[in-house]
Formats: sequence, structure tokens, C-alpha cells
Amino acid sequence: MKVLFTAALAEDLRRDLDAVFEELGLEVDYYNERKTTSIENLDDYEVLVAYNPFENIDFSGAKNLKLLILASTGIDHVPDYLLQRENFTVVNNYGAYGVPIAEWIVMCTIMGMKNLPAIEKRRRGKEWGVEHDMLELNGKEILMIGAGKIASEASKRLRVFGTRVSAYRKSKKPSPDFDAILDEVEFEDKLSLADVVVMTLPATPETRHILNKDRLAKMREDAVLINVSRGATIDESALIENLGAGRYRFVALDVFEKEPLSQDSPLWDMDRVFLSTHTCWMSENRGRRVVEHIERSIRAYVSGEKFAHEADKKSKY
Amino acid sequence: MKVLFTAALAEDLRRDLDAVFEELGLEVDYYNERKTTSIENLDDYEVLVAYNPFENIDFSGAKNLKLLILASTGIDHVPDYLLQRENFTVVNNYGAYGVPIAEWIVMCTIMGMKNLPAIEKRRRGKEWGVEHDMLELNGKEILMIGAGKIASEASKRLRVFGTRVSAYRKSKKPSPDFDAILDEVEFEDKLSLADVVVMTLPATPETRHILNKDRLAKMREDAVLINVSRGATIDESALIENLGAGRYRFVALDVFEKEPLSQDSPLWDMDRVFLSTHTCWMSENRGRRVVEHIERSIRAYVSGEKFAHEADKKSKY
Repeated sequence: MKVLFTAALAEDLRRDLDAVFEELGLEVDYYNERKTTSIENLDDYEVLVAYNPFENIDFSGAKNLKLLILASTGIDHVPDYLLQRENFTVVNNYGAYGVPIAEWIVMCTIMGMKNLPAIEKRRRGKEWGVEHDMLELNGKEILMIGAGKIASEASKRLRVFGTRVSAYRKSKKPSPDFDAILDEVEFEDKLSLADVVVMTLPATPETRHILNKDRLAKMREDAVLINVSRGATIDESALIENLGAGRYRFVALDVFEKEPLSQDSPLWDMDRVFLSTHTCWMSENRGRRVVEHIERSIRAYVSGEKFAHEADKKSKY
Repeated sequence: MKVLFTAALAEDLRRDLDAVFEELGLEVDYYNERKTTSIENLDDYEVLVAYNPFENIDFSGAKNLKLLILASTGIDHVPDYLLQRENFTVVNNYGAYGVPIAEWIVMCTIMGMKNLPAIEKRRRGKEWGVEHDMLELNGKEILMIGAGKIASEASKRLRVFGTRVSAYRKSKKPSPDFDAILDEVEFEDKLSLADVVVMTLPATPETRHILNKDRLAKMREDAVLINVSRGATIDESALIENLGAGRYRFVALDVFEKEPLSQDSPLWDMDRVFLSTHTCWMSENRGRRVVEHIERSIRAYVSGEKFAHEADKKSKY
């Protein structure tokens, strides 16, 4: 069985994986997916381990590929010509970024409550004085859109601050990590009440613009909005329009409809927007967690066991 | 019994207190401590309810004053000629700012881990890209200097992130809110190990420059330092020197040795410094908590019961 490995990894982490591959008797070819545009004899490979080689390399000739082990959580960058194949499994790095992104969500939530833009404005102007418009997180109502690993890790932390956290997801499967799981009707109601709305859904055809113009208009004038998942889940031009009209207390965006965000986007210069560049998942532990996920997945595949998390190729989750 | 009331309060909150004073049969005179420089017949008053009238008004003539109810937590602004009197009790608003300041501490801690200065620099330059120097709070070692209400509220929240929190205080009285209470020797050891150091001690003669030049030098090169209590607890010029030499990952200062902070202070312009203007205690619930504290204190005084928290006039805590 041959493995094609295109994910970038630090030297020491790759050596750890080499030992696993050797133990399992697997032959591995390494390429750098950022610098490679074509790979010979693609039909030799049964397993592909990768982040995102799909923009550079055409995999339609990889006729014998049975398994894709993704280092990323999202699978929206995997081309349909692969996803639509039968006898082809995708294992994504589900939950690997739950901890760092949950921490980011808590940070952005408090920054919104404490009115960081006003505090930073005082600092820039060297203007001494108490800022009066600062709120406690304690007692606030938080709505998570999505109830996956990121939402639940964030909720566990936020609830200790005395907040109430509900989550909206398609299935009403209960979870102890939230105060409530909402159906669509309850979600619409909560949207108009929540102090903080956090988008954690992946980009799928179904989640595109799930925060559309109507729903964005429904939110409180002084709501805090955070997006840590994918830009496509929010109607960005409606959001920009609302921000321009003075709506929302604080909007923290790490992701955008088109990335890199255009230099012309008004979001770069908006006062109440905390803008970061698709980086909130970054962590000193990321490499270690990727290696653990690859090892777990390849061992399960070789021994014919169930994967810890198999991606749904249809819903792209 | 006559009460002198100089603390500023919103109209509705003062009405609530008026009802209490009336019920207790107390005569109250109101002054605005920010605009008043002298008060007639000071020796009429047995009780003073105030924030900080002491810069504007000389109370040495208030011969019959028995009780000072402070709306503030700190008592370092109360003049010694009052504190040194016998049969004179000070009741401070102990713990009233525990919740908002604990939230602030968590926010600053995560901002330090996530390297906010680097993220904001990218944004200012409209420079798209992943920031690699971002850390998880998960697994970090946190040292609180002081183990009062603020430290313990912060610790309760921080520990849910998978951190270990120890606190240094004079008495080793144990507390379930921390992983460990440290004595002075243990404190010195922890100082050189901690990822995050948080100053929560009040300003007293004993706590002045408790983070002195030597101790500041002992801290990790990449430590996060947060001060939410009083500027006098840190040797500010040694701190500035260290920052200039590239030490510390992130320093969040809400308080300074001299306030307002001088326009000339290099701190205003330092990249790795998050500077705010003695405002981290602010909250929409502050007025309500002050009123509850005043009501509790005056009822206890009138009925001769024990106060919820009597300030130590010697240690000024």
C-alpha cells in the first residue's frame, strides 16, 4: 500500500510519523503541496495525507485513492470530483482546533463587552479617563450557531462567567455543554435576544449565508458578533452595510467570504470591527495534534477499525 | 445620627438609599465630592459615605466621625489623620469589582497568549496571513500576586481553560479557588516559571514595589504580566527598562505609579503593552453593587452587627 504525503510538517513530527509508517509496513512518498504542481504515477497511491494540495495538483488521475486523511478540519476545499467517488473515505481533523478557537471566542466576547475599540481609542489619543460604556460578561445571553467541538469547548468556558449559552443545530440531539439546543424556530427567536452571537458552522451548501440579510437585521443593535468558522456563512455585504449604519457593539471576524480579504474591503478600517486574518486556529500544539490524528487514522485504516471521525462527504461536515 | 453623603450616584439609586435612610431614621446631607471644597459643621456628622472627597475637603475638623463607608475597594486614598484615629471604622467596598476585573484579567491573559499586538499590526498594514506566534492558554502556569476576591474570581474562570493557578499571600490560609497558595520562598520560585503573572494586591506601604527590579528580572523573557490593582505595586521604571530591552511577551497595565499617566510616558507607545486608563473595574452593575454595600453597611452599623468586611486601617487592605 502506497501513501502520498503532501502536508507540511516540522521535521521532528515527520520523523515520529515515519516510525509509524515503517511499523505498519507502508511505503510513503513525500511532496510539498505548496510547491508541487504535478505528481507522477498518481494511480500508485491508495492513501493521501494532505492539507490543501487541490489548488495546485489535479488528482483526477489518482484512480486507486481510497482514503484522504486531511490535516484540516474543514473539507470545503476538497474538489467534488474526489468527494463524489464511491469507495472513497475522507477523515478530517475534527475537533483539533477546538481548544485554541474556543479560547479565541472567549477573548473576542470579553473584548466586545469591555468595549475594546473605545479603550484603544483613548490610548491612541493619550486620553486619560474612565470608559463608562463597559459591560460585564456575567449574566449575558450567548447564541452559538453550530454545536460542534468548537462551540462546545467555547460554551464550557463561557458558562463559568455566569452566561447562558444556547446552540442551534439541525438535529436537536441534546448536549450537556450547552444550556439549550435550539431548533430553527427557537433559533430565530434567540437571534433577536442574544447579547453575543458566535458563528461556528463549517462552509457547506446548506450553511451558505445562514446569517443572511434578514437575520442580521433581527439581531440586537448592540449585539456582539463573532465569526471563527468560514466567511461564506454570513452575508458579508449586508453585514458591512449594517456596520456602516451603526449597528452592533463589536464584530470580530477571522474569516471572510473571499480570502485573502481584498485591500479595498471597508472592514479593514471599521472601528467596531476586530479583524484578524484567518489565524484564530493557530497554536503551538497544532503540529502535535495533526500527527496524532494522522497516526490514529492510518492505524484505523490498516487494521480495518472505525475512524474517530469520518467526514460526511455530502454535508461537508 | 447625621450622615454626610458625598459619593456620586445615579438618581434612581440614590432614591433607593433615601428610603433606607428614612426607614432607619437617619438625617442625611448630600454633597458632590467632585465639586465641594468645604463643608460646614463637619463635627455634626457621625457617618461619612464617600468615594474620594479627601483631595478636595479637609476632614480633620470632623471630630465626631465614627464610620467611613467607602464606595471604593482601595482605601489608600484615605488620609492618615483619619485612619490613625481610634474609635473610627472604615468599611470598604470589598469584592465589589471582583467580577468585572476577573473578566478583564482573563481577557488580557488570552490577548497575551494570542499575541494581539502582532495580529493588530497585520491589520493596520492590511497584511493577510497566518500569525504563527500564537499560544494556547491551555496548560499554562499562572501566578496571582494576592489571593483576594479579584484573584479568586479570576482563578475560577482561568482554571476552566486547563491552566494551573497559584496565588501568593502573606498568610498561607488555604483556598479552594487556587491550585496552590504560596509562601514567599515558593513565590520567588514560581515567579521565574510562570507564563502569566497577575498583580491584584492593593497599594499599602508593604506592597509598594513588591515587583521590584530583581523580581521583574527573574520573570520569564516571554511572560505575560497584568496589573489591575495599583501602579505602586510595580517598579514602573524597571518595567519600562525591561520592556525596552525586549523582555516580556505582553504587558497589560490599567494602573500606573502616577495617575493620570504622564503624556511623556513611553508606555503609551510601546508595542507589546496593552494600556488602559484605570478603567477595568467599570461595569453596568457598579452602581447597584455600591448601593447594596452602603445599605448593608449602614444597617449593620445602626443595629450594632458585624460588618461584612471591615478594612484593616494598618495594612490598608
